Order: sequence, then structure tokens, then C-alpha cells
Amino acid sequence: MTKAQTKAVTSPAPSVRDMANAIRALAMDAVQAANSGHPGMPMGMADVATVLFTEALKFDPAVPGWANRDRFVLSAGHGSMLLYALLHLTGYPGMTIEELKNFRQFGSKTAGHPEYGHAPGIETTTGPLGQGLANAVGIALSERLLAARVGNDLIDYHTYVIAGDGCLMEGISQEAISLAGHLKLGKLIVLWDDNSISIDGATSLAVSDNELERFAASGWNTARVDGHDPAAIAAAIKAAKGDSSRPWLIACKTVIGYGAPNKAGKSSAHGEPLGGEEIKATRERLDWPYQPFDVPDHILSAWRAVGSRGAKTYADWAKRLSGANAEAKALISGRKLDTALASAIAAAKTAFAADATKRATRVWSQLTLEHLVPALPELVGGSADLTGSNLTKTKAQVSITPENFAGNYVHYGVREHGMAAAMNGIALSGSFIPYGGTFLVFTDYCRPSIRLSALMEQRVVYVMTHDSIGLGEDGPTHQPVEHLSALRAIPNLNVFRPADGIETAECWELAIAAKKTPSILALSRQAVPNLRSDGPENQSAKGAYVVKASEGARDVTLIATGSEVGVAIEAAAALAKNGVSAAVVSMPSFELFRAQPESYRNSVLGEAPRVAIEAGVAQSWYEWLRPSDKFVGMPGFGASAPAAKLFQHFGITAAHVADIAQALAKKAN
Amino acid sequence: MTKAQTKAVTSPAPSVRDMANAIRALAMDAVQAANSGHPGMPMGMADVATVLFTEALKFDPAVPGWANRDRFVLSAGHGSMLLYALLHLTGYPGMTIEELKNFRQFGSKTAGHPEYGHAPGIETTTGPLGQGLANAVGIALSERLLAARVGNDLIDYHTYVIAGDGCLMEGISQEAISLAGHLKLGKLIVLWDDNSISIDGATSLAVSDNELERFAASGWNTARVDGHDPAAIAAAIKAAKGDSSRPWLIACKTVIGYGAPNKAGKSSAHGEPLGGEEIKATRERLDWPYQPFDVPDHILSAWRAVGSRGAKTYADWAKRLSGANAEAKALISGRKLDTALASAIAAAKTAFAADATKRATRVWSQLTLEHLVPALPELVGGSADLTGSNLTKTKAQVSITPENFAGNYVHYGVREHGMAAAMNGIALSGSFIPYGGTFLVFTDYCRPSIRLSALMEQRVVYVMTHDSIGLGEDGPTHQPVEHLSALRAIPNLNVFRPADGIETAECWELAIAAKKTPSILALSRQAVPNLRSDGPENQSAKGAYVVKASEGARDVTLIATGSEVGVAIEAAAALAKNGVSAAVVSMPSFELFRAQPESYRNSVLGEAPRVAIEAGVAQSWYEWLRPSDKFVGMPGFGASAPAAKLFQHFGITAAHVADIAQALAKKAN
Repeated sequence: MTKAQTKAVTSPAPSVRDMANAIRALAMDAVQAANSGHPGMPMGMADVATVLFTEALKFDPAVPGWANRDRFVLSAGHGSMLLYALLHLTGYPGMTIEELKNFRQFGSKTAGHPEYGHAPGIETTTGPLGQGLANAVGIALSERLLAARVGNDLIDYHTYVIAGDGCLMEGISQEAISLAGHLKLGKLIVLWDDNSISIDGATSLAVSDNELERFAASGWNTARVDGHDPAAIAAAIKAAKGDSSRPWLIACKTVIGYGAPNKAGKSSAHGEPLGGEEIKATRERLDWPYQPFDVPDHILSAWRAVGSRGAKTYADWAKRLSGANAEAKALISGRKLDTALASAIAAAKTAFAADATKRATRVWSQLTLEHLVPALPELVGGSADLTGSNLTKTKAQVSITPENFAGNYVHYGVREHGMAAAMNGIALSGSFIPYGGTFLVFTDYCRPSIRLSALMEQRVVYVMTHDSIGLGEDGPTHQPVEHLSALRAIPNLNVFRPADGIETAECWELAIAAKKTPSILALSRQAVPNLRSDGPENQSAKGAYVVKASEGARDVTLIATGSEVGVAIEAAAALAKNGVSAAVVSMPSFELFRAQPESYRNSVLGEAPRVAIEAGVAQSWYEWLRPSDKFVGMPGFGASAPAAKLFQHFGITAAHVADIAQALAKKAN
Repeated sequence: MTKAQTKAVTSPAPSVRDMANAIRALAMDAVQAANSGHPGMPMGMADVATVLFTEALKFDPAVPGWANRDRFVLSAGHGSMLLYALLHLTGYPGMTIEELKNFRQFGSKTAGHPEYGHAPGIETTTGPLGQGLANAVGIALSERLLAARVGNDLIDYHTYVIAGDGCLMEGISQEAISLAGHLKLGKLIVLWDDNSISIDGATSLAVSDNELERFAASGWNTARVDGHDPAAIAAAIKAAKGDSSRPWLIACKTVIGYGAPNKAGKSSAHGEPLGGEEIKATRERLDWPYQPFDVPDHILSAWRAVGSRGAKTYADWAKRLSGANAEAKALISGRKLDTALASAIAAAKTAFAADATKRATRVWSQLTLEHLVPALPELVGGSADLTGSNLTKTKAQVSITPENFAGNYVHYGVREHGMAAAMNGIALSGSFIPYGGTFLVFTDYCRPSIRLSALMEQRVVYVMTHDSIGLGEDGPTHQPVEHLSALRAIPNLNVFRPADGIETAECWELAIAAKKTPSILALSRQAVPNLRSDGPENQSAKGAYVVKASEGARDVTLIATGSEVGVAIEAAAALAKNGVSAAVVSMPSFELFRAQPESYRNSVLGEAPRVAIEAGVAQSWYEWLRPSDKFVGMPGFGASAPAAKLFQHFGITAAHVADIAQALAKKAN
């Protein structure tokens, strides 16, 4: 008998209830100190979380980036204090009691909702409901993909999610559970905080779903437990871990704000401090006689012991990893791109420069992928059921199925939102670079997840084709007009709209190289002319550049993106015939151009009158235009007709651009 | 025996199959003529649609706006030729064979996807998947609401939906079916085109859901039929009509592209013309020996007879309506606002002018609603589970429940997308004006439906509170920064950001008065100062106006919206102390300001240097700024901290604005 064991006998370990009460107390105290926050959920789910962390979760706070750790995703992100309390109690570096005291204060690690990157142990940013659950599908899928490549010996982790009623009411939850059920992601275990309370009151005000039946209909295993019965919770998690044939929903019946004598079970416990009186009463009810933020040694020690338990498992794993082959090691730790990216893009550009065929930029994108995918095994492609339109699948790519996770292409189904959120999860997993396609107009369907890619600084590549009225007959419901502007408004998102094959390859290179920024590739349905066949320099990297210099001094500058760069070049030729000297600027990325020195920007845009051309609304263009300049684009929604007719109707033609430019140039002279 | 009956005996009516084949032929011929479109769905669902129209649907093509007609919503909007064929065959005015020949051509009624307003009988714009199904929930809800007010004798219609696999895969479908199931909308009948094919191939590539179990889990009745067995289809619809206790899903097992020998049952039948050879073979297979677009008389007559059958039902109904009371008549035909709107707003403004309390604009909105809701019985409010935050419910409003449709407030649950789409349906129903709330940041969750409000020109009012970092501690996931710009990019959407109580009342007035434009009301969480107590004129109607004139000649113009107008006024006061004369412009609506004459715009904006202030990104502001002007706002995402700290951190303060303005004014002098 070791000394530690002797000690354990003489000083009995705290109960699950005691340990859970530490979470409850920290949650209510931190919310009270901040005078803002959500105590109800952490107090309600404290028992479940305690059982999960003490009995099931494989983790080592000393190595929070351990590739084979179990993931814990708090989809109900408003319950952030549950996570922060757990990270503090189990000993994650930096998650001090001071951080908890600074809950929701400027610069703290303990933001109102968990923010990825603020502290180790926060696996993803949550708060917008349903996102964490859908991220978790991508994380769980990554586990299967990585395990298929490096073996279960090295990668074999579970993904646990705590989701609330709100997560399950959001439509994204259906896309996520449907995809997870289809793919039989059996190591995904969702713990539903079934507390029957939402902000407006009882959930019965708005929802009557039988969630267990719903999940079962999507191929999930389900169980129901009393969320305050540790033995039942432990048994359910054990059963779920023991059967990985399908994902699991464990409905945990809980009382929101558990322990608060007057507010427990009520929506008033959800989103505001309990108040001094109620906190005092709660301390009594829970038999928790300690001061605010004071966790007694015996309980803290028990928690810290839980935290240190994973060290041995990690060490054993690290030993196994050291014996693995180089490719496995590289994949597990996140491959360095080295020269592979540059070589693949160089090869693509060389091939494209020799290819005079007019093609749509979506086709050039596919041709680029034919170079990229073989060179970068970490690429995982997909489409929301538009593979043949987005051209996201290369010849050699293999579809992932529940029976074969050795593939590298996901049929996401008609689930744009679920796809985007899953891609966030794949990116967060650390081993893969996800890209996925739909029509540009349907960025609206996945915008909340695109925003989170940007906020979390994740490298996710959105391949968004059919990027204007150039798609033609499908009409205004399918024609993006405001989307380029609306996407450019999102911080830390690179919106690329390449003009031809060379630019498409360049933009792909930039997207893959941007480790902390997601990218939109806006690609045409219709064929565009080749504009460049020049050398290896990535001209798109500066965001904008003169693609066709003026003959002599500039009379006018035409600025365009994507398929309208060809229109501008044609207009410049027409202007030349009339003695007007026009320079043409291609601007594949506003964001990268904005980041250039002012001197470069001025040299590109010039002093001459400017005409901007883009088959979208004007909004984002005013940044580059002076009041006397002009914009040629869409005045509003499009229409259903063949593309050429639409460009004609809306005046997005070389002739019209030339007319406007000529008038401007004349005025200026 | 009448003459007509005699004739029917001597010339037997065409079979369902014959009548359905007319749809099939028109669909494949129109797609072929357009060289673009989706023949597979209309051909697959032709039998189901024929049974629905011939046996169940209550409609009268001569009175397409009949308030008590059954609604037919083609949620799978890519199958638009199904709808156009039905409208042509049953004799809707204007839906001539020429229109069908002009399928997908510029200016035709027959756009690629059904566009509301293009032709009578198109109940809603569909194409973005799942939207029609979710609109239908709002339509079916409107039926219950209206019936509760005017009696089942006058309003008693069914809402039928044809939905495809894609509709059911979209997350919005879950929000819709969950809400419909909760509200027990038993007169909603969804016919699912269960053809097991999506664009990427077999649906089994991406989905394994048991849809019947899923709908049942949300409280729906379900049935399954062979979609090519008219008797079975008729029996299922009859059973569904006979039991209105819950909504119905009828899964119709069909063959996509039914009749096409080589393409039926394949994804190649989905979204491209069948081709001349295949069409020829299909004609043979279907025993349809007629020329393209040629519907033989006996079949056309049979269809026209179906179309004229509703005339008597309509006439009987019109007679009943003529005996109804004035209020019922007004509600049914869509109430005229008359003076009720103006009076309610005038009363609100008078009260607000006398009230010096600093309040959040969301509070002013609620106080405005206290005047509006009693005055406008057609208002139907709601929130996506944020009632107490959005302040969308007035004292006297009654929650709608499955047992009580006499209420006027919907607890939409945590279903922003479903709410927005349902509101579109409510607006389309013609009797009610819907408004609903969530946080401004979650406009992202319902953006596809907001876009459709705008495209369909529907008066839907989005009450979007917590409109900036002013919400404080919830942090960047909840702080809209790009949303004002992103919403302003959507055509035909009025984005209002009122600055105080008076402006809030004015913007509500403008939102309700805009019959063909949806509105966003962006409202603050935090209290703002009162800026105006002036007379009855709606100053917000011009989009922007000088809220505080300069003392003497303007040295600088400060332009702001919402909570930042107070900041600008404070800055102007500080500038005055330094001898700088600043005018302050409040710009509650860019859209309305843009619509003003240039002379007015110039007079408001002036020639002096401009500083724009808004706690969001700069993008949409460049329209009003010259290169030498300045913007004070958000450089990117926000942070979690108390609001005052955030405004300080990001420099959105009167002191910082004054500094910048002073420097600009000095430079100009």
C-alpha cells in the first residue's frame, strides 16, 4: 500500500456532490462579481460535468494541446463559468482564481462566452447556439479521419458535448445530428442539459419535440438519466463509451440553478446574477460554508488529482508517438506546408499559362485542386450537395463513408450551415485543412459559422461558386448581389474573387497559407478570358495590382474583380480606340490590398478618374472611390434570364463601361 | 341529368396519368426550350400534384387572391415548371402557353424559380431550400389566427407544401416542423417528394434519417404512399384533411424524372434538360404523341374544368363574407392603416417628449408598441426566446398557444430562421403584420429569410436589439460589428437605427407604413439620452437630418446613428468650448436618405469635414465620406467587458470624436 493510498483511506475523498458544489459556488460567485452572466446552467450541469471529468474524460492540463485528448465542447456557451471552473479546478495553466474573479472583464481569459485562444482547454468559441454541437461533428469526424491514417493506437479519442435546449432548437443542430448519424460518428457523445427552461420561461411555451426520438430518427443511440444522480450519469457515459456504433445522446434531466432555493428551476436563474440574498441561501442549502471564490483544500486537491491523472496516459501515448513514422507524426502535430504548397501552385500556374482555353474560375479552381490535393494530404474537401457545380472534387479524391474514413472528401448533404460549422471543427482539430463548397448566395445559410471561422482565426476555405448574375437563369434567389459586400464586412475574413486561372491558383495559395484567417473563394459559373501568363510572383498577394497598364499617362483607371476584370480589359481596348488611355486594376482581395502601404495603394489606384466594375452592389466599393468616381454594378436584385442578357440589361458590359469612363475622362481633362 | 353530365358520360374523363403527363411534357419541353432548368422534380411529382389539384385543392383561378383559398407552396422551388404547368392548365390569368415557352427568359412570368408577384398563384418565392416549408408554417398559423378572429365559417383553408429532400436536409426545416408541431397546425399538409436523389447522387451518400420518425418526434402525423399511385395519394390526402389534430407529413415515394427511359431515377434528371433524344423516348414511354407545348383539347379541358370548379365555392364564400362585420371584412382583405398608425405614433411621441428618462431604444420600442399594438389589431408580435431582452411583448398581448389562437404574440423558440421565414408567411397571408425579435448579431441566423422578405417585398419588421458592443459582457460572439453594414447591403431592406425615443417611434411608423419593404429596427441594450422633444413631423422619414445645428458656420459635421448620436452631441458640446462649430447629423436610415434629392443630402452633409461615428465597421459609411473625412467605429470584433469600458477601449467616446474632429477642422482652416 503506497503512502498516497493510505492517505486516501484516512481522508475520504470528497463526494461528487461536494466537487460539483465547487463548480456551483464558483459560477454563482463569478457571475455575482461580474454583475452579469449565466449561473443557472453551470449549477444545473455541475453534477454531470463532475462525473464526466472525474470518470471519463481523457485529458492532461499540462499538455492541453495533446492531439489524442478527449474533446469537451460546451455548446451551451453561456454557461461559460462551468468550463472556467473546471479548467481552474483541474489545474489548467493560467486559469487562476484571479481569472475567475475577473469573469467578463476586459482582457481576462474568462470572457462572457468561451473564446477559443483565450485559454488552453477552450476547444472552440461558443455562445451562438448550436455551433458547438456542429463543431463537435467536425472534431469527431477528424478523429476518425486521423485514426484511419495513423491508426487507433495513436488516435482514439471521444468528443463530448454539453448542449442546451437552445442548441437543440436551432436548425443547425438538425444538420449536425443528421450528418453525425449518417457517418456513424460513434465517439461523439452529447450530454443534453434537459432542464425544460429557456429564457421566455418553460420550454413548453415553444417546443414539444421528443428529442430522444428525433435523435434516434437520425441514427443515434439515446439514453435518459437524472442529471443529479452521479451513478446514473456515470453508467450512461460508460455505456456510451462502450458502444461506438453510433453517436450518443444522453438526456440529463436537470434543475437549472440547482441549489438556489428560490430561483432553481426557473428562467430567472438563467441569465442574471442570483443576488446576494439568494447566494447566501444557496450556500446554506448546498452546505457550502466557504467564502466567495474559496474552494477548500480537500476539494481542490481532489480536483487537482483528477487533473493530474492523465499525465501517465499522456506519457504512454507520447512514447508510442515517438515510434511512429514521420508522416503520422507530421499529421498529428499539424503538417508544415514547407515547399509543398508553393510547388503545387507553381505547377498549376505553369500549366495554366500554357492553356489558352476560356474557362470558368470554378473550373480553374478544380484544376488547381488537382495539383493541391495530391500535394497536401491534410486537405479535406467537400460540398453541400453541389459537387458537380462547385467542382470541389478532384479525380483522385475518395468519398468518406461510415465504412471508410480513409477518404478525403465529404458529401455534406444540403446542409451549408452544418458543413461550415463542421469545417470549423475540422480546422480546430489541428490536423486537417477543410474546404467546402456551395453557391455564393448560400453563404447566407452558413454565415454564423463563417463569422466564427473568422473570430476563431481558423483556416477554413469556402469555395463559393456561381458568384453573380453570371449564373443566369436560376434567377434572383440564386444570384448573389449583396454577398461580396456583406462578406467583406466580416473582420478577419479574406474574400477572394479571382479573375482567371492564374489568379485562381494564386488565391488558393493565399487561402491555404493564411493560417489564422478563413477565406472565401468567389468563383464564376461562366467562362472568363485568360488575362495573365506571367511568372511565378503571386500578384494577388497584394490584393490589387495593375493587370493592364495604360498606354502613356492614365486618363482613367478601371478597377474590377473576377469575371468583370475581363469586361474592364475589353473596355480599355475600346477606350484606346477613342484615344482614352485606361489602366485596368484587378482587385482579387480588398483585405490584402487594404493591408498594403499607402504608397502602393496610391500607385495602383492612381489619380485619374476611377470606374469600378463588379456584378454586385456598390457598398463595399465606396472605400476605393471618390465622390466623382463611378461604379458599374447591380442596382438591386437580379433576374432570371440567360447570363449574357442579364449583363446587357444591367449595363455590365465593356461598351457601357467604356462610355462611362470616356465621359469621366473627358470631364477630368 | 344535365347536359354537362351527359357529355361526361359519353366522353370519359382523362385519367390522372394522362393529366399528369401534360405536366411532365410541359416541364421537359420548357426546360429543353430554355436549355436550362429542372425537369426531374415536376416529372416525378406530377401524379401527386395532379391528385392534389383535382381532388383536394380549394382554389379559383379567377380569384387568385381569395383569402380563403387553400395555399399551395412549392418549397422545392427548382421544380418551378410543376407550378407553372399547373397554373397554365387550370387557367390562371396570364399564365399562357407563351409564358411557358419563355421559361427562364428575361421579363417572363416563368422565372427559373417561382417569384412571388410575377404571376397570380405563386404564393411565395422559393428556391433557397427549406424556405417554402417554413413560410407555410406562417401561412398555416395565419389561417388559425384569422379563423380565431373571424370564425371558421369565413376562414378555413389548408396549406399544402411540396418539399424535396433538400428542403428536409436544411436546418430551417427542423425549426419549421418543430414550431408547427408544437402549435398543432393541423391544416398544414406536407407532401414530401421522397425520390432518394439529390445533386451529388443517391441521397444515401449524405443522409440516413428516418424522416417519418423525425416528424413524428415533433408531433406530426405521418403517412407513406407510392407517389405514382393516384388512389393511394388521394386516400392519404383525404385522411390528412380529415384529421386536423396535428400537421401532416405524407412521404410520396417517387421516381425523379418519371417517364424518361434513361434518366429517370438518376441525378442527371434533376437539374439539366433531358436532351432531344431522351425527350423523344420519354414521349413514347409516356404514350404522349403530341408536339412540344401541345396539350390536346380533351386533357386541357379536363384541367380547365378542375380550375373552374372552385367558382361556386368562392361565390358561396363571398356571399358569407358580405354578411360579415366590418372588422372581419377589413382583417380578411388586409386592413387599411387609415389614421390608426399616425394617431398611435403621435400619441407615443407626445408621451416621449414629456419623458426625460434616459432609456435604451429597445425600451422606447416597447413603449411605442404599447401604443401601436392596441391600435393595429393586425400586428402579430414575437421573439426567438428573447422576449424580456427584445422587449417585444406589450402588457396586453396574449401568447398564442395550440389551444388559443386568439392571441397576438408568438413564442418562436430559439429558432431565428424559422421565425423569420414564418413571418414571411404571415405577411404573405395578407391579413397580419408580423414583427419579431432577436439580437442583432443573430440576423446572421435568419439572413436567408430576411433576404426573401426584401426580394418578395413583404412588410416584416425585425426588432433587433443589443445592437453593438453596448451589450457589453456577452462579448464578441454576441456583439454585432459588421451587421449594420451587411444588412444595409441587402436591396429593398430598410435598416433603421434610431437614436432616442422620438426616433424610435418615428422608425416604427416608417416600418409599418412601408408596405413593400421589410425593416430592421436596430435597438440598443444600453440607455441613451433624449435628443428631441419637437413636433409631429417625422424627421426620420428623410433618413438623415441635422439634429443639432452648428452655431454659425459649420467647421465640422458629425454624423452618427443610434446610441452614437448622443456621443456626437456630447462631442459637439466639447468642440464648442474649443471654438469649433459642429453640426450633428442623425442618420437613422441610409436607405431613406439615399432616396432624398441630392440638394437635400448636400444640405444635411455640408461641405465641412465630416466625422462619422457608429459602433460598427466602417464599410457602409464610405458612401457618405470623402477620402479626407474620418470614421470612428470598430476596427474588428469586440470584446467581453462592461460596455463603458469597451466604448473607452475602442475610442468611441465624445472626447475621442472631439479630438479627431478638432484636428480635421483645423486642417481644413
